[in-house]
Amino acid sequence: MKKRIAILGSTGSIGTQTLDVIKHHPEQFEVAALAAGSNIDLLESQIFTFKPKLVSVATKELADRLAARIGFGTRVVYGDEGILEAAAHHEADVVVTAMVGSQGLRPTLAAIESGKHIGLANKETLVSAGHIVTEKARKHQVDLIPVDSEHSAIFQCLNGEKREQIRKLIVTASGGSFRDRSRDELKDVTVEDALKHPNWSMGAKITIDSATLVNKGLEVIEAHWLFGIPYEQIEVVIHPESIIHSMVEFQDHSIMAQLGNPDMRVPIQYALTYPNRLPSPSAPLQFGQLRSLNFKSVDYDRFPCLRWAIECGKQGGTATTVFNAANEAAVGLFLDRRISFLEIESYIEQAITEHHSIPNPSLEEIAEADRWARASVLKWSQA
Amino acid sequence: MKKRIAILGSTGSIGTQTLDVIKHHPEQFEVAALAAGSNIDLLESQIFTFKPKLVSVATKELADRLAARIGFGTRVVYGDEGILEAAAHHEADVVVTAMVGSQGLRPTLAAIESGKHIGLANKETLVSAGHIVTEKARKHQVDLIPVDSEHSAIFQCLNGEKREQIRKLIVTASGGSFRDRSRDELKDVTVEDALKHPNWSMGAKITIDSATLVNKGLEVIEAHWLFGIPYEQIEVVIHPESIIHSMVEFQDHSIMAQLGNPDMRVPIQYALTYPNRLPSPSAPLQFGQLRSLNFKSVDYDRFPCLRWAIECGKQGGTATTVFNAANEAAVGLFLDRRISFLEIESYIEQAITEHHSIPNPSLEEIAEADRWARASVLKWSQA
Repeated sequence: MKKRIAILGSTGSIGTQTLDVIKHHPEQFEVAALAAGSNIDLLESQIFTFKPKLVSVATKELADRLAARIGFGTRVVYGDEGILEAAAHHEADVVVTAMVGSQGLRPTLAAIESGKHIGLANKETLVSAGHIVTEKARKHQVDLIPVDSEHSAIFQCLNGEKREQIRKLIVTASGGSFRDRSRDELKDVTVEDALKHPNWSMGAKITIDSATLVNKGLEVIEAHWLFGIPYEQIEVVIHPESIIHSMVEFQDHSIMAQLGNPDMRVPIQYALTYPNRLPSPSAPLQFGQLRSLNFKSVDYDRFPCLRWAIECGKQGGTATTVFNAANEAAVGLFLDRRISFLEIESYIEQAITEHHSIPNPSLEEIAEADRWARASVLKWSQA
Repeated sequence: MKKRIAILGSTGSIGTQTLDVIKHHPEQFEVAALAAGSNIDLLESQIFTFKPKLVSVATKELADRLAARIGFGTRVVYGDEGILEAAAHHEADVVVTAMVGSQGLRPTLAAIESGKHIGLANKETLVSAGHIVTEKARKHQVDLIPVDSEHSAIFQCLNGEKREQIRKLIVTASGGSFRDRSRDELKDVTVEDALKHPNWSMGAKITIDSATLVNKGLEVIEAHWLFGIPYEQIEVVIHPESIIHSMVEFQDHSIMAQLGNPDMRVPIQYALTYPNRLPSPSAPLQFGQLRSLNFKSVDYDRFPCLRWAIECGKQGGTATTVFNAANEAAVGLFLDRRISFLEIESYIEQAITEHHSIPNPSLEEIAEADRWARASVLKWSQA
C-alpha cells in the first residue's frame, strides 16, 4: 500500500524537495494534503502533478483565486484553521512539517494528536516546545523522524543502538557563508553575500542562520529533545565540506557517522521510507574525487550565537523561544535591509538578556514570550 | 552472568589485546580456555592472571614444561588436538580465533560445530573456506562477529539495516608502510622498513601484508563471505589516516561509517559485547585535533596483489587458498631474509597463474591446494 504524505510548507525549499522525492517513487507514495502560504502559482502546478485531496493557503482571497483555477478533485481551505486541517488530514500517514519558523508548532501538535508520524523539518517546534512535543509524541506513539541532515544522520547512526550507551552526539557545522571572515570583516556584509551558502541549497532564512551559527544552535537544542541527550554530551565540530552530516560517539569510543553529498533529498527520503531505504535521485559520493575532509573546533567568540543557544537550552523554559523569536525577527529585518548583519547578534543578545525565562511553559506562555521577543527586536531596531 | 571466552592464539597481537579488554571488564568476562604456540612464558603469566580451565600449546614437550610451572587449576593440552579441545571447550560462549594464517581453519570449524559464537580474527578461515564456514555457521546458528577493524566497522554500519538495501561496501586501506614509495623504490626495502606500519600496532606477518595490500585483498574476500556481497559491490579506498575503519553505502546513497583512533581493542571489545557496548580503555577521537581525513583511489598497478586477490575471489574455488598460502610462504621467506620484498609479489603471481582452481572444494582439496602453493613457493625460491 502506498504511504500517504501531507506536506506543511509545500512551496518552500524542503517542501519542493519532498515532492521531488515523491515524484521519483510514484509506486511508494501519494500526496494527501499540501499547505502553502501565498505562492499559489507553484501550488497550482503541485496540485496538477500530485492531485492532493486538500490544500491550504494563507488567506480566503488566495483560496478563492486558487479554487477558481483548479478542478473539483482538490478542496481548498485557508488560514490557521486550514493548516490544522491539512496537518490532521484523515488520509495522511506521515506529515512533513516544512514550514519556516515558530508558526510550525500548532500544526505539528495537531498532526501528532491525529496519530500521524512526523517528518520533522520545522526545528523551531522542538526549540520552543520540546517538552510538550516529545511528551505528546510518546503519548500518541508516533515517530518524530528528523528531516534536517544533521539529525537524520544521528538518527541513522542510532539504528540498532542503545541510547544509554551514547557518549556524545557530534553535530557537524559547515560554518556557513562567512566562516573564513573575522568579526571585523562582517560589519558591512550584504544580504546577497550572506545568501551564498557554500554547500547546501536552502531557503533564505536558514542560510542566514547558517552564517550566524544560530541554525547550529537551534539544531543542538533540537538534538537535545529529539534524542533525549543532555547538552553536555552534544558537541559541535566545524567541518567545512558538509560531507559527514553528523556522528554519534558511543561509550566504547566507536563513532558512527553518516556521510554523503549535501543533498536534502536523502534525509527527506529517509524520513519517508524509514526503516527502509529506496534508490535516490541524488548523486553518490565518489571517494576517489573527494580528497580530504577537514575538521576544527568551534570558536565560540567568533560565533557567539551558538554559545547563547546552548546556554538558553541549558536554562530551558521560554529562554529558547526568545532566542529563536528574536533571531527570526532580526533576520527578517536584515533580509529587508533594515539592520546590519552583526545587529542580528546584538538583538538576540539583548532579548535573551532582558527576558526572564518561565520554566515548563504552556503553549500560551511560549506564544507570549515569542511575541514579546519579536516586538522587542522591532522596537529596538526603530529606536 | 559473565560471558566466557576462549582465545585461540592468546600470545599474539590480537590475543594479548583481547585479554587486555577482558581485564578491563572483570565483571563482564571470564577466560575459559587459551591456545598458544610456543611462548609459554607469556602464556604462564596469562594463566596466572586469568585462570583458564584449559590451555593448549604447540608440543608435548612445551606442555610438560608449562604444566610443571603452574598449579592444578589449569589443564594443559597440546598439538592440533589441543587446539581443537580449546576451540570446543564446554565452558566457552565465544571463541576468538586469533591464530595467524590458514592453520585457524579447523579450530574455527570445531568451535562453530560446538555452537560457539565466533569472534573472527583469523581472516584466512573465510578466505580459504568461506563457503564451508558460512554454511556451517548458518546451520549451527552461531554469529560470525568480525574482529578486524574494517569488518567490525562494516558490521556496525549494518546495525538495524537490511542487507538487500546495500549498494556497496567501502573498505578503507591505509596503504601500509610503503604507500608513498614507487615500485622502483621497493626493490631494496628491508624487513625493518616493512615492519613500520604508520597507524596500527600489529603482528609482523599482517604488517607485511599491509605493505603489499595482500591484507586488503584478503579483507575483500573475507567481506564477500561475511556479508554475502558480490565482489563488484566491494570498493577499496586509500585512506592514509586509518580513522574511518570502513563504510557501507546504501541504495539511497546514504553512507554509514565507523570511525575512531586506530586501536584494535575497540573492534575486539565490540565482538565480545555485541550487540551492546561497554566503556573502552582506548583513547577517544578528538575532532579538534584531527584536522583532515584524506582519500584517494587505489592504483592497482602499484598494488597488483590487491587486483589478484579480487580476481581470485571472483574465480572462487581453491584460487583464494593458493593466493593466501603462496603469500604466507613468501612472507615467511621475506621475514627470514631469504627473498626480497618484491619477490613476495612474483611468487604469488606465479602460484595463482600455475594453479588450476577446483570449484567448491572440500577441506581436503583446500589443504592440498594450500600445501601445493607453499611447497611451490619454497621450491621456486631455492631454484
